[in-house]
Amino acid sequence: MASTEGQVITCKAAVAWEANKPLVIEDVQVAPPQAGEVRVKILFTALCHTDAYTWSGKDPEGLFPCILGHEAAGIVESVGEGVTEVQRGDHVIPCYQAECRECKFCKSGKTNLCGKVRAATGVGVMMNDRKSRFSINGKPIYHFMGTSTFSQYTVVHDVSVAKIDPKAPLEKVCLLGCGVPTGLGAVWNTAKVEPGSIVAIFGLGTVGLAVAEGAKSAKASRIIGVDIDSTKFDTAKNFGVTEFVNPKDHEKPIQQVIVDLTDGGVDYSFECIGNVSVMRAALECCHKGWGTSVIVGVAASGEEISTRPFQLVTGRVWKGTAFGGFKSRSQVPWLVDKYIKKEIKVDEYITHTLTLGEINKAFDLMHEGGCLRCVLDVHA
Amino acid sequence: MASTEGQVITCKAAVAWEANKPLVIEDVQVAPPQAGEVRVKILFTALCHTDAYTWSGKDPEGLFPCILGHEAAGIVESVGEGVTEVQRGDHVIPCYQAECRECKFCKSGKTNLCGKVRAATGVGVMMNDRKSRFSINGKPIYHFMGTSTFSQYTVVHDVSVAKIDPKAPLEKVCLLGCGVPTGLGAVWNTAKVEPGSIVAIFGLGTVGLAVAEGAKSAKASRIIGVDIDSTKFDTAKNFGVTEFVNPKDHEKPIQQVIVDLTDGGVDYSFECIGNVSVMRAALECCHKGWGTSVIVGVAASGEEISTRPFQLVTGRVWKGTAFGGFKSRSQVPWLVDKYIKKEIKVDEYITHTLTLGEINKAFDLMHEGGCLRCVLDVHA
Ligand SMILES: NC(=O)c1ccc[n+]([C@@H]2O[C@H](COP(=O)([O-])OP(=O)(O)OC[C@H]3O[C@@H](n4cnc5c(N)ncnc54)[C@H](O)[C@@H]3O)[C@@H](O)[C@H]2O)c1
Ligand SMILES: NC(=O)c1ccc[n+]([C@@H]2O[C@H](COP(=O)([O-])OP(=O)(O)OC[C@H]3O[C@@H](n4cnc5c(N)ncnc54)[C@H](O)[C@@H]3O)[C@@H](O)[C@H]2O)c1
Ligand SMILES: [Zn+2]
Ligand SMILES: [Zn+2]
Ligand SMILES: [Zn+2]
Ligand SMILES: [Zn+2]
Repeated sequence: MASTEGQVITCKAAVAWEANKPLVIEDVQVAPPQAGEVRVKILFTALCHTDAYTWSGKDPEGLFPCILGHEAAGIVESVGEGVTEVQRGDHVIPCYQAECRECKFCKSGKTNLCGKVRAATGVGVMMNDRKSRFSINGKPIYHFMGTSTFSQYTVVHDVSVAKIDPKAPLEKVCLLGCGVPTGLGAVWNTAKVEPGSIVAIFGLGTVGLAVAEGAKSAKASRIIGVDIDSTKFDTAKNFGVTEFVNPKDHEKPIQQVIVDLTDGGVDYSFECIGNVSVMRAALECCHKGWGTSVIVGVAASGEEISTRPFQLVTGRVWKGTAFGGFKSRSQVPWLVDKYIKKEIKVDEYITHTLTLGEINKAFDLMHEGGCLRCVLDVHA
Repeated sequence: MASTEGQVITCKAAVAWEANKPLVIEDVQVAPPQAGEVRVKILFTALCHTDAYTWSGKDPEGLFPCILGHEAAGIVESVGEGVTEVQRGDHVIPCYQAECRECKFCKSGKTNLCGKVRAATGVGVMMNDRKSRFSINGKPIYHFMGTSTFSQYTVVHDVSVAKIDPKAPLEKVCLLGCGVPTGLGAVWNTAKVEPGSIVAIFGLGTVGLAVAEGAKSAKASRIIGVDIDSTKFDTAKNFGVTEFVNPKDHEKPIQQVIVDLTDGGVDYSFECIGNVSVMRAALECCHKGWGTSVIVGVAASGEEISTRPFQLVTGRVWKGTAFGGFKSRSQVPWLVDKYIKKEIKVDEYITHTLTLGEINKAFDLMHEGGCLRCVLDVHA
């Protein structure tokens, strides 16, 4: 590509002007990266539920107009002052979980959350000047999750971009920006499932299937998949699920069904839906004494989980995970390498491919049972 | 003592005839131990909240008439068939958490809960014949928690009795039957507090103070005590509490007060009250990314804890503990040894001593701020 360094780039982006109104493909001006920033040419982006949630207007922190998108891959177009870890031409995955390696969180050794740029990314701007790099005829358009990948070019903080092996096909590994690592990491990092464990997975979308794959590789002895859509079961077998339960086939509460199936409950459960009553069921189907439940799904704002405290006093543990506990800049490249070595699946989650111009259709597809991930070719 | 082996013993016991009616000191017949059972002469017993809770009638599983009591020490009077680990004359602490070393729980290596005799102890009887060993003129009186220590003699399962060093003063180490191990173990076994950690303790009764002692020995850097009764703070200093917060002194929710005090929240929190809204506060005052909250207090039946799932998705962990995670038969003797070596406090929790005949007064004392543990001399 011809150098556009230091210049404003005008390109196509899908703009969410208002909650719940179709996205509009617009000509957007993308300002050059400032100090500590990286401008990325996005080649492929997938859609994830957090995009749909904010778009729906239910997210009280959602800001409009904005450019959504956070599961993508691209190539560095230019870097701002002081950026040393990536340079023009590097293949990268934008990371909504930053990793600065300097803050209290990064240095704790206990979490993948990072505090460095959150104050800015949480309100749709960049740290440096607390402004957006996107505009349309001078009107600023907010960033989203520090990534805004529904655009041919985006600007991200340098702590929010993972440099990956250029051999990796970007139209596939874009999925390693959110859903797949979240599921794998929930098993490997958050729950730390041991060989022989009995696992239950609530919700068999991309995240739940990645949990299944992670549990299989952790040598779980039984992987019970729970979904209200039985058409999910066939695909789920290929990801390691060994048994299926559709709550609709049972009169009893689903936690009781699973306790009965497993002589007292599962060792680990994962909620991959975002439904607070299922989160309760996922906890309560855990074995007394040690069963651990991990919340992966994101519930709507204001919703609350509840249970009797006796569930915890008798040994169950309630946890959650964000991006599967993976440190983004350090570990996304490692996941890409695992994919190249065929140690983890990625292609199998891609059920649809469309272009950026077809993004509204892609959002519609998310509600269809047959869709796992839809990848958009951003420059087609 | 003259041998009473094989005979029914008639002795004094405090009988709870009905919920919420004063206990009555009665002459009770205590049948000889059957196979796998141990008859214990109880010398000293303390009172704990679970006794008061069942007595109050709020415990839907409470059965009347019964003999309450579960924090005690005594001497084996006789053993039933097949009992090998204790014999007449052994000094023992009855344990409401059994440890059979054979069941799925005991063998898991993951919990101190034991399934062996629970089906019987949960309904006030002994496993062998599903009957009570207590009666008054032929009318059976239910057991309680498999211990029933408000009696001069009691019968317990052999898996529910810990043999201890006879050098230990029984009028002190009776406390190692419940509250003190619960607090110490919540820190050492359940939370596994590391040196340098910031800890918050909600409720500074016996259990909360034992948490403080445990946290101090684990080298916590700050131990924040929270109580609505500021008179608790003086004593609490002696147990390691370094800072005090009375929620009544603040307009802001207590979780916010503690987050502000600690630059983002505590590493570990412990709820030692039994109040579900405090359980929520204890979780929510934990640091994002890693803070772990342990529920120790026992809430009234039917009450529920709640929070936003986002609290867990952003890295907080919610746990609970029963008997501090200690394996009773294996570890109570070790705690007694630690007491003998002056490595843990016990005497300091005893604020009152009375006789079995004064038990109703002892229950009244529990509601007074100045009372931690009241020990009853059962044969005085
Ligand atoms: N914690 C994180 O970091 C993180 C990251 C990515 C995604 N997520 C969240 O994970 C969740 C799952 O994402 P996904 O892309 O796999 O979603 P998805 O919509 O593809 O899958 C959800 C599945 O749950 C099933 N389901 C719905 N209601 C159910 C019920 N009551 N009982 C059983 N099954 C039910 C659906 O049939 C579907 O198969 C979403 O809430 C998403 O926001 C969280
Ligand atoms: N999990 C277990 O195995 C186990 C074992 C023993 C006891 N317990 C439970 O632990 C709890 C504590 O036992 P204890 O003997 O220390 O009780 P306690 O009554 O002596 O102490 C409770 C303390 O909490 C304080 N308090 C009450 N409401 C408060 C509030 N809203 N905010 C702050 N402080 C408040 C009181 O002033 C008191 O100092 C009880 O619920 C008991 O049933 C649990
Ligand atoms: Zn996502
Ligand atoms: Zn950081
Ligand atoms: Zn107790
Ligand atoms: Zn057992």
